[in-house]
Amino acid sequence: MKHAMIIGATGGIGSALVAALQSDYSLMMVGRDSQKLKSLKEQYGGSIIPCDVSNELEVQALFQESPPLDLLIYSAGAVDPTLIKVTPAASWEEVMDANVTGVFYSLKHAEAKLNKARVFVIGARPELVNYRGFAAYAAAKAAVQRLLAIAAIEMKRKAEFTLVLPKAVNSAFWQNVGKVPQDALEPSFVASAIIESLNKEAVSELRVG
Amino acid sequence: MKHAMIIGATGGIGSALVAALQSDYSLMMVGRDSQKLKSLKEQYGGSIIPCDVSNELEVQALFQESPPLDLLIYSAGAVDPTLIKVTPAASWEEVMDANVTGVFYSLKHAEAKLNKARVFVIGARPELVNYRGFAAYAAAKAAVQRLLAIAAIEMKRKAEFTLVLPKAVNSAFWQNVGKVPQDALEPSFVASAIIESLNKEAVSELRVG
Repeated sequence: MKHAMIIGATGGIGSALVAALQSDYSLMMVGRDSQKLKSLKEQYGGSIIPCDVSNELEVQALFQESPPLDLLIYSAGAVDPTLIKVTPAASWEEVMDANVTGVFYSLKHAEAKLNKARVFVIGARPELVNYRGFAAYAAAKAAVQRLLAIAAIEMKRKAEFTLVLPKAVNSAFWQNVGKVPQDALEPSFVASAIIESLNKEAVSELRVG
Repeated sequence: MKHAMIIGATGGIGSALVAALQSDYSLMMVGRDSQKLKSLKEQYGGSIIPCDVSNELEVQALFQESPPLDLLIYSAGAVDPTLIKVTPAASWEEVMDANVTGVFYSLKHAEAKLNKARVFVIGARPELVNYRGFAAYAAAKAAVQRLLAIAAIEMKRKAEFTLVLPKAVNSAFWQNVGKVPQDALEPSFVASAIIESLNKEAVSELRVG
């Protein structure tokens, strides 16, 4: 059976991916919320690994314990809208950690376990986050786009990398932001688009919706 | 006399800016290297303030002591080419700190001192840094581009923001990278382009070379 790891499995898109992938993959579900991870395991089986992606040692341990991976999906993220002039350093750091530093740690330590793998990371379209209060989030998502492009160069023998760029998604993202937009995509729609892409030749960017 | 602050005044572009601006501005020259700052002061006058931009308290103090600014230029930066799979967290952090987190701290604390000011930040063209080893640098420079775009929205009554996108520049950057490209711009050329732009209507991006 093929092996897949989903980092951020407890989020909206992550959970939808678990549901969609569990029949075809031996799944490792990674997240911070142990209770939610347990619920996922009860519902879908697979293995669960609590991990804070902002802690490099935890990410390192995660991949040391992992079998070779056919599929790695990074759907963790954080958003904390606040004007630059009053953004606490801790808020900036949390958003950068979840959206880009955690991806760096993951790619760094995943490298040895990637074997003709596919890697998907959830990004954000710059034009959809170009608003007051979104400096850290927009900066982090722009950063991860370039990080992934260079990972694709450095690790081209190991994996193919896809940045997923959905429209607004109906997920916990909006808890800190405001009302879910009326035309927001369901997380399952994004999961389906990823799986469809997974069964085709890899693209560097996958726009959804 | 108008007031200008140059963060990263001891670097190639920073020093060229000091030379070019000293006759028209009361200059605050900011950097980490006290010896180099002293040399600049001996040569050009102005005031010098040692500051590590990765330390928010130092950046905060810097702007608390500053008069209202007509011009703020951020030309600090760091590069440390290394493959993702062997990049130490400290290297990633240093590059992110110098190229984007330091800009965040600066904009956050500068905000109260910007008064119809012009703000310039040195960026990098994505296509010029899309190479193996440049993940952190490319990520940081992409991040600062979005940070500046959102600062321009949030602080539009305070300042106009320009991201400077030069071709390769003949500067200390190459000490950690390799041979200076034959067609590299001289720092004074970039400084002249910034000053020319300063005397015209603000643009959000200034390509040089």
